[in-house]
Amino acid sequence: MRWSDIGHSACSVARALAIVGDRWTLLVLREAFFGIRRYEDFQRLTQASPRIVADRLAKLVAEGVMEKQRYQERPVRYEYRLTPMGRELHPVMVTLSLWGQRWMGDPARPPVRLVHRTGCGRPTMPVLVCSECSEPVTAPDIAVEFGDAYAEERAALTRTPDALGRVTPGGSEP
Amino acid sequence: MRWSDIGHSACSVARALAIVGDRWTLLVLREAFFGIRRYEDFQRLTQASPRIVADRLAKLVAEGVMEKQRYQERPVRYEYRLTPMGRELHPVMVTLSLWGQRWMGDPARPPVRLVHRTGCGRPTMPVLVCSECSEPVTAPDIAVEFGDAYAEERAALTRTPDALGRVTPGGSEP
Repeated sequence: MRWSDIGHSACSVARALAIVGDRWTLLVLREAFFGIRRYEDFQRLTQASPRIVADRLAKLVAEGVMEKQRYQERPVRYEYRLTPMGRELHPVMVTLSLWGQRWMGDPARPPVRLVHRTGCGRPTMPVLVCSECSEPVTAPDIAVEFGDAYAEERAALTRTPDALGRVTPGGSEP
Repeated sequence: MRWSDIGHSACSVARALAIVGDRWTLLVLREAFFGIRRYEDFQRLTQASPRIVADRLAKLVAEGVMEKQRYQERPVRYEYRLTPMGRELHPVMVTLSLWGQRWMGDPARPPVRLVHRTGCGRPTMPVLVCSECSEPVTAPDIAVEFGDAYAEERAALTRTPDALGRVTPGGSEP
């Protein structure tokens, strides 16, 4: 199956990945969250080829994740900023970064420190909590229920019973 | 630059992406969180080619994100399960799914519903909160401070002042 088709899947993970499921795209987004806005800086800091950076920025603009704005007239120059849609990828970048730091980093030398500047002002390692009861949630705490359209899509792909209906994620049951 | 080099970057996002920054890998992980364990089911439900699924599963096992266990003797069959390292990718998958659902989905027909089964039992849309004060955090709330090694790595790549030191992510300031 091609990714242009998978973008039409009922699955919201698949649809998100059709836009941001690419290493270079995610490195460009990392730089955008660091405050980088100019093509040359995206290119230097991601170390991607000029062609790749131009391609990923154009796609992010086309998908509505970033916007291109003129910031100088002579010569004409543009900068790239996150849109509201793009800024809402922040939890994805934060959780990915914390995972990398926990499992691949040197705890004594963290590459970045996040600081809760508008709130308590302390270094923070944000955690995911339930929107209803505010308790921290991890994989075994959350059950997944498939909607009708997505359940049908999955049923068409397999007859395996455990691919349907209500399942518990994490794969930790016998 | 090659991804085998980027995996050695001080940046924890880059190191995480060297392992999971690929659409098919993330779809395989999605299925693992749905409770899928067998090669044939990963292949059917991701709709990736057999070669791609075998490659991604082998890499995830090699990196310690999944483990391969024998579950049948004659003929010998294996299943793939998330390790603790893999299960801790749950926040990444949840935030990615919620983003896809919010920006690309049909709000009337969500593909999946998450339920806080070990807690309040209600449908939930988990949110990221500060580990210190428990207040919700979004992009403008969090400042990023670079550690020495990563600041040096970035300095070597660019002389642009705003690529160094303390920055506020989100790119929303003038």
